[in-house]
Amino acid sequence: MADRQRITPRSEDFSAWYNDVIMRAELADYSPVRGCMVIRPRGYGIWELMQQALDGMFKETGHENAYFPLFIPQSFLAKEAEHVQGFAPQTAVVTHGGGKELEEPLVVRPTSETIIYAMLSKWIQSYRDLPVLLNQWANIVRWEMRTRLFLRTTEFLWQEGHTAHATAAEAEEETRLILGLYRRFMEEWMAMPVITGVKTESEKFAGAVRTFACEGLMQDNKALQAGTSHFLGQNFARAFGTQFQTASGELDYVWSSSWGVSTRLVGGLIMTHSDDVGLVCPPRLAPTQVVIVPIFRSDDERIRVLEVGGQVMDALRAGGIRVLLDQREGMKPGAKYYEWESRGVPVRLEVGPRDVDKGQAMLARRTGGKAPVPLDGLEISVRTALDEIQAALLAAARDRREANTFRGVEKDRLIEIMDGSGGFAFGGYCGSDACELAIQERTKATIRVLPDEEFRSDPAPATCAWCGKKAVVEAVWARAY
Amino acid sequence: MADRQRITPRSEDFSAWYNDVIMRAELADYSPVRGCMVIRPRGYGIWELMQQALDGMFKETGHENAYFPLFIPQSFLAKEAEHVQGFAPQTAVVTHGGGKELEEPLVVRPTSETIIYAMLSKWIQSYRDLPVLLNQWANIVRWEMRTRLFLRTTEFLWQEGHTAHATAAEAEEETRLILGLYRRFMEEWMAMPVITGVKTESEKFAGAVRTFACEGLMQDNKALQAGTSHFLGQNFARAFGTQFQTASGELDYVWSSSWGVSTRLVGGLIMTHSDDVGLVCPPRLAPTQVVIVPIFRSDDERIRVLEVGGQVMDALRAGGIRVLLDQREGMKPGAKYYEWESRGVPVRLEVGPRDVDKGQAMLARRTGGKAPVPLDGLEISVRTALDEIQAALLAAARDRREANTFRGVEKDRLIEIMDGSGGFAFGGYCGSDACELAIQERTKATIRVLPDEEFRSDPAPATCAWCGKKAVVEAVWARAY
Repeated sequence: MADRQRITPRSEDFSAWYNDVIMRAELADYSPVRGCMVIRPRGYGIWELMQQALDGMFKETGHENAYFPLFIPQSFLAKEAEHVQGFAPQTAVVTHGGGKELEEPLVVRPTSETIIYAMLSKWIQSYRDLPVLLNQWANIVRWEMRTRLFLRTTEFLWQEGHTAHATAAEAEEETRLILGLYRRFMEEWMAMPVITGVKTESEKFAGAVRTFACEGLMQDNKALQAGTSHFLGQNFARAFGTQFQTASGELDYVWSSSWGVSTRLVGGLIMTHSDDVGLVCPPRLAPTQVVIVPIFRSDDERIRVLEVGGQVMDALRAGGIRVLLDQREGMKPGAKYYEWESRGVPVRLEVGPRDVDKGQAMLARRTGGKAPVPLDGLEISVRTALDEIQAALLAAARDRREANTFRGVEKDRLIEIMDGSGGFAFGGYCGSDACELAIQERTKATIRVLPDEEFRSDPAPATCAWCGKKAVVEAVWARAY
Repeated sequence: MADRQRITPRSEDFSAWYNDVIMRAELADYSPVRGCMVIRPRGYGIWELMQQALDGMFKETGHENAYFPLFIPQSFLAKEAEHVQGFAPQTAVVTHGGGKELEEPLVVRPTSETIIYAMLSKWIQSYRDLPVLLNQWANIVRWEMRTRLFLRTTEFLWQEGHTAHATAAEAEEETRLILGLYRRFMEEWMAMPVITGVKTESEKFAGAVRTFACEGLMQDNKALQAGTSHFLGQNFARAFGTQFQTASGELDYVWSSSWGVSTRLVGGLIMTHSDDVGLVCPPRLAPTQVVIVPIFRSDDERIRVLEVGGQVMDALRAGGIRVLLDQREGMKPGAKYYEWESRGVPVRLEVGPRDVDKGQAMLARRTGGKAPVPLDGLEISVRTALDEIQAALLAAARDRREANTFRGVEKDRLIEIMDGSGGFAFGGYCGSDACELAIQERTKATIRVLPDEEFRSDPAPATCAWCGKKAVVEAVWARAY
């Protein structure tokens, strides 16, 4: 049943607004299990479309799906020193199975590098076996103290790519390839512009040589780390003895990458586009792209209008558009409009008796605007509207990000921004841990990335935004989820 | 690298043969985690195609996907008395999370009825909210003592459908709808004929009123329970207080069903069709349907042959056929044939210089037979071959099952069959637990199902195959996986 409770406005409480949007659109719900959420069909439908798009991109670039065990022997985690430090405190541990205490406790996977490298050591012998380009769609458990629907939950769904290569250069190229693929997905499908770049040492993945990330800016001007791609060097290969015979007959450890995006993306999508009415979903990821609402007063009108509504639905469906005809009785059209708007359906077609007489329907966009369109050639009008909405959402999100991006910031300005409305602050960075930490303590902002070239300021900042000494690199600060 | 070790013949050791086929075709591997397997890309590819087909069938019949937590509070399992008896001994239990001992241990889901009914109680208020038709694709853990790749592993992948209805009749209809859908999938996609029917009390799902199942007959004449569909009555609704207001304003508990198939199906596919050379995979579920093997001696020949091979690949791929061009160097065509045969690729196209001159390719079928086909119109020849192989596999499996199905069996014959080569034994059953148990103790055969009408013998058996008293029903006995 539609929940008629008010959605808290963003201006009043962004965090309450976010939860209200999710509950109203029935995307997810809290479960009786601490920190774990239930993804309801309307939310899971978005994730399924995300999966399809990403899976297609992975396969086009030569990756294959596989599945590795949920459980990891506790001793495996410990084989890579940084890795265990990063993940051990967050694990859920199985100590009993089949009614008996286990000899060695099993960790519920917080990520799968260790179990995968244990297997790769068995499968890889020679350079001819390389590269290995694997991906898996799986559930992950990381014990979280403070959880938020989609953004941070004890259990979440993700994909994790794991690749092994004969050379460092190939593994780095893979890391970069995936970062670009993620960015393309986020922009072309989610309509969520992101900045890419490399993480500082303190923010990198536990066990990686270098971590690259995509960072989006949400409507509350906090950053969301939306995807990461790690160059692992030979760290895991050494820990698990994953060696191969090179073309020249020597033994070497494989070079590797790992990368992932998760159901967190659904949270990013919500916080990028939605409004005080509810969810706004980019058409390419909308489980329902078009809803047809019939309008009638008499039984006679009802029959005429539903006949046309059914024809419209069939025609659009045949054209590959995800469409629904809302035939529910005992509910007024206005109530239906309101409900489908809060659920983020991009296009609504209203069909009343006068529309039928005129051979038209009213096309209303979730993002605003309503106009009559002829039934003849309706598929093209609808497709055009969906494409325009998709493009407009990306443009609006990009404009919003640009309006909240500040360049060449120095200490006072950085503090002012982070104490104020937030945003992406670009500034020089001396590279010291001390400045990174001092900024975080004072402003709660972290270095999101050292941005890739196309995002960098020109000219490059000369001095560190905090200490004023010579800058060695440019950094992007923001408060983050 | 191709493993050249010999595949144990079926006649020598069926169980060793099964493992050899899996290892040779690289479908799966043992993991360092007790009872857990790794599904490798060639095996996962089959599962992905199974998922796509089933998911499409579920959605066509109005089901929606969702995702519920991996963890279930231990107390939830106990709310349905039979359910906890059946599953508690098999659970893996998380006792520690985030470095602390949990107040209440969490069970890793052995099935999700309990957590789902806890949520449905929150979501369902009125008959207007019904039916609820949910499915989830998930991993499941049941602590198993003796495990076998795909057939019985501590962790496995499956789909579990859960539906709630206003009336018993609707829930029963759903249970039957899904049983039919499973059968159709097994026959049309897996080319695996199955008998459907209802389980006896001793074999039903813990918590169900009635369990229906699809049973296939493997090449060793043991039965495989390949899918089950349960009518749950109001058992879980009562345990979790899932009530709704009926159209007449009263309160009632919902009526429900649950149903599932798992990665066990991959094991069933292997044991239904494969031979002593290796995997035989039905074309509709083959990740690679066609492999093109170029044949050449000189560089000049290589260029000509690969050009044509590439064109053939592009043409077939454009037609939606899953095709691969094996360009590996330093490997003789014969070795490639052998490898792709053991991996179960249904069609091989050999392209040599003389074939190119004649505008043809040699088309070899995994199931036997090789003939030239013109390159012109090759897509149609290939499609025809794939369709014929698919149909022939089903026909052969059906013939094999019929040849190993025995009707009207009585005590001596039942013992003789089960002590001998096995198979499906149809006979009368008095309905007593005593006979069911005595047969199992003497022959190791269980009642697979009380068969649905279309599988029953005519005339119906008059007396119980064991005690000779009046039969109340016909039963199908077999030893089973």
